Amino acid sequence: MAYNLLKGKRGIIFGALDEKSMAWQVALRCYEEGAQITLSNAPIALRMGKINELATLCGNALVIGADATSSEELENVFNKSIEHLGGKIDFILHSIGMSPNVRKKIAYTESNYDNFLKTLDISALSFHKVMQTAMKLDALNEWASILGLSYIAAQRVFPTYNDMADAKALLESIARSFGYHYGIAKKVRVNTISQSPTPTTAGSGVEGFDSFFSYAESMSPLGNATAEECADYCVTLFSDLTRKVTMQNLFHDGGFSYTGVSVDLVMRLASTMK
Amino acid sequence: MAYNLLKGKRGIIFGALDEKSMAWQVALRCYEEGAQITLSNAPIALRMGKINELATLCGNALVIGADATSSEELENVFNKSIEHLGGKIDFILHSIGMSPNVRKKIAYTESNYDNFLKTLDISALSFHKVMQTAMKLDALNEWASILGLSYIAAQRVFPTYNDMADAKALLESIARSFGYHYGIAKKVRVNTISQSPTPTTAGSGVEGFDSFFSYAESMSPLGNATAEECADYCVTLFSDLTRKVTMQNLFHDGGFSYTGVSVDLVMRLASTMK
Amino acid sequence: MAYNLLKGKRGIIFGALDEKSMAWQVALRCYEEGAQITLSNAPIALRMGKINELATLCGNALVIGADATSSEELENVFNKSIEHLGGKIDFILHSIGMSPNVRKKIAYTESNYDNFLKTLDISALSFHKVMQTAMKLDALNEWASILGLSYIAAQRVFPTYNDMADAKALLESIARSFGYHYGIAKKVRVNTISQSPTPTTAGSGVEGFDSFFSYAESMSPLGNATAEECADYCVTLFSDLTRKVTMQNLFHDGGFSYTGVSVDLVMRLASTMK
Amino acid sequence: MAYNLLKGKRGIIFGALDEKSMAWQVALRCYEEGAQITLSNAPIALRMGKINELATLCGNALVIGADATSSEELENVFNKSIEHLGGKIDFILHSIGMSPNVRKKIAYTESNYDNFLKTLDISALSFHKVMQTAMKLDALNEWASILGLSYIAAQRVFPTYNDMADAKALLESIARSFGYHYGIAKKVRVNTISQSPTPTTAGSGVEGFDSFFSYAESMSPLGNATAEECADYCVTLFSDLTRKVTMQNLFHDGGFSYTGVSVDLVMRLASTMK
Repeated sequence: MAYNLLKGKRGIIFGALDEKSMAWQVALRCYEEGAQITLSNAPIALRMGKINELATLCGNALVIGADATSSEELENVFNKSIEHLGGKIDFILHSIGMSPNVRKKIAYTESNYDNFLKTLDISALSFHKVMQTAMKLDALNEWASILGLSYIAAQRVFPTYNDMADAKALLESIARSFGYHYGIAKKVRVNTISQSPTPTTAGSGVEGFDSFFSYAESMSPLGNATAEECADYCVTLFSDLTRKVTMQNLFHDGGFSYTGVSVDLVMRLASTMK
Repeated sequence: MAYNLLKGKRGIIFGALDEKSMAWQVALRCYEEGAQITLSNAPIALRMGKINELATLCGNALVIGADATSSEELENVFNKSIEHLGGKIDFILHSIGMSPNVRKKIAYTESNYDNFLKTLDISALSFHKVMQTAMKLDALNEWASILGLSYIAAQRVFPTYNDMADAKALLESIARSFGYHYGIAKKVRVNTISQSPTPTTAGSGVEGFDSFFSYAESMSPLGNATAEECADYCVTLFSDLTRKVTMQNLFHDGGFSYTGVSVDLVMRLASTMK
Repeated sequence: MAYNLLKGKRGIIFGALDEKSMAWQVALRCYEEGAQITLSNAPIALRMGKINELATLCGNALVIGADATSSEELENVFNKSIEHLGGKIDFILHSIGMSPNVRKKIAYTESNYDNFLKTLDISALSFHKVMQTAMKLDALNEWASILGLSYIAAQRVFPTYNDMADAKALLESIARSFGYHYGIAKKVRVNTISQSPTPTTAGSGVEGFDSFFSYAESMSPLGNATAEECADYCVTLFSDLTRKVTMQNLFHDGGFSYTGVSVDLVMRLASTMK
Repeated sequence: MAYNLLKGKRGIIFGALDEKSMAWQVALRCYEEGAQITLSNAPIALRMGKINELATLCGNALVIGADATSSEELENVFNKSIEHLGGKIDFILHSIGMSPNVRKKIAYTESNYDNFLKTLDISALSFHKVMQTAMKLDALNEWASILGLSYIAAQRVFPTYNDMADAKALLESIARSFGYHYGIAKKVRVNTISQSPTPTTAGSGVEGFDSFFSYAESMSPLGNATAEECADYCVTLFSDLTRKVTMQNLFHDGGFSYTGVSVDLVMRLASTMK
């Protein structure tokens, strides 16, 4: 069901890989709601994923390869997007994250620090770079809306999340810090969405994802939020109906974040006690 | 601009007094977005305010007087609403609050405790009673959305807010607690919105409101949120696009909540120093 | 091991019942650290518990019966304490809580509201009354330290905690609100400690306490904090070494509050999955 | 006044420059409380500051130069400290932070990213490196206590704090993450203290420090906390009386963190309005 919530708006979606990606679903829903978009991801992700399929589904959206840690390549994304879409940008989704330490199964307490800095650069500083580039180019309309995808490991420890937890804490801090400045300068709003664990291609590769997913489901009164539901939520935050929401981290998780323990979980645990 | 976001939905709006009320604006916007609503307020508020004018603007909405601290009168609100609207309820706005200590200008440290308990009963327990009544009558559809209006004094001290601050902390706790149970039982979501100071008839009567409003404006990168903007936000939270958001307190305040200090404020203060 | 951290200080301890009570352990430790104290509890608790035994262990401390919901009886506690101890008071522990709904096993969603208001009055407003009485009588020395005992159910839902969760949210709000005023007026600090679940006589009566205690242990990197350890922590917060800590809720829980999930818990859950 | 709270304990203090430094005061107080300590700072800080003076005041403490971003140099600090102090370490203070962007007066929205990564490496990753090195060398006794110094800019925006705000958010996340693992592995606790603005040599160099300091004073019911008071608080957190406090960020700020606005501030602002 579509409402034309984003009619006439122009957006850039960073980070769609395949149909399991959050960014994929967000792109689809934005297009359904009347937006024109461009798509960007790292060159390797463009080769390995199916982004051209997504582009077709989104009215032959322009795909622009870019390493999001490079301000130069980000400039190119904004310039091409504005040219192709015919005007300044109204919304941006940042769904970018990668940890070499996680990939190489290096324990948090044995972190390789070159890797750690890469995790921070790719997963958090890239968000700052996107905004700094946009501001420098004056690429956004007033009341534009910028979203980053985060995870509750920014607030509490989920051990397998490793240094991505610290990267998400940094991402959320950057959202607040830049949100302050961009709000004053151009009335742009900046928020992060902290989403339930989602079986994306990246997420489900993490060791023990299944039992963790089941734990989160058990601890969420409404169940885990899906990527499609996340896309619906993003649409509201890109729309004109949420103009005064800024510098927030918004939990979209079926109630997980404020559930200390569930009856269901205690019962499952009780069955493991003698 | 309307999107039909609430087409076919039925709602109850508690607490509209006059056109400055948050609830007034929410009622109007819900009606614009396709919802059918009923309106409820305390008998004295019905007499003193202009609710019939609002009812007319909302398609001759039914007005049902009720003391929100009385479970019996709330039962009547639900029964009449379901009958009049022709089915179960999809959304509820609770915008109810009153402090006898504030009205009588009794300092927080000299609180009268009968008054204090009344503040809690009217401003917070009434929210529990609305939900308990709805649950008992099975008055809500699955995925119904319930919103209470709160204020950041629930988290940090704003001295003139007096015992209303404690009532809002209680209100937000009740939203979490009941949200857990209602989520599991019926997939109903429960949230509070923590709104900028708003020059309502109730709010602007508080001593020093003007200089406080100006302080908040100075500390909000996007400026204070208006009642109309709050209504827009409520619409998104009543819609089907935010189904997995529950048990949250959502700041709608132009960034006030995460601004520690603004450049503007520091400059104004500097001018007061020798 | 004692350090004379409270040498020369005078304190009032509310809420000691028997040796499992948090307040019992706090009283003992304060006495060991050089303080003189008086003890107060409700008349029925004085009859059912062993407070005279505690009084003996604390240098024949004066025991003063008082219903903590009565400002008059609290006046008596302060007047007697000052007279008996020979001067104004330096620290107060508030360890008072009771929910008639929990006692009568009434579900949260079927709350009896007379009970609910009693829960709030006994468990939260009594904290306000203690401070209001102290302020009115000018019963505290500058830099006095006031502590209330809280629980993480104030922040997140623990279903069996019922309306005590909302009472603790209210208690913590009162700590902030009164802490602001008492800080400015008399440099008094006010904080709450949010303690691990503890097998007190009151706590361990709650249904499912054992499996919940085990859950908390599993989710706390340092294990649950004991009543004795809580007493140690209280001593530091009553001492002169923490004078600028105020309006805080301090978690004393072995890390539970910031642990999203533990490896131990995920492994136990995995064993319950097919 | 001393209590022998740290009698027999061995500690390492990172970051003392001169008598205005927080770390300087902490070192002095730990020594007064019976601890033996070593001191470490960057080679350039050793040359420019007066650390030898401090060493003399602390019983001829050993001074060990180290770049805290180098795991190798940190290994040397631990090895020398253990050898010199005659056993494993019981407590560590990390008071290290530096932002090249701040030094070069580069605006947050025009950040140089090499500088930004350096800010994160020096001010936050160094905390991880200290703990990873300690764990690798098994350099700590059970129940050892580790503290990092933070600032409320980690939670809310203070514009002049620039990228140090993001670094502090990262620091606090690292405290939680490593605290989880070190707690399970060795019962070591890890916390951060979020301190009032303090006129250290580093802090008071920031533009507009004076008016900001005055703002914080006005918003803190007990006034800003001094470096000496911070040292007192650190002593309690290094002591055996706080063993179950871990993974916390502890505000030590006279109530600033939970004061939304003060009467004093509103009055000063009112005087700036026409």
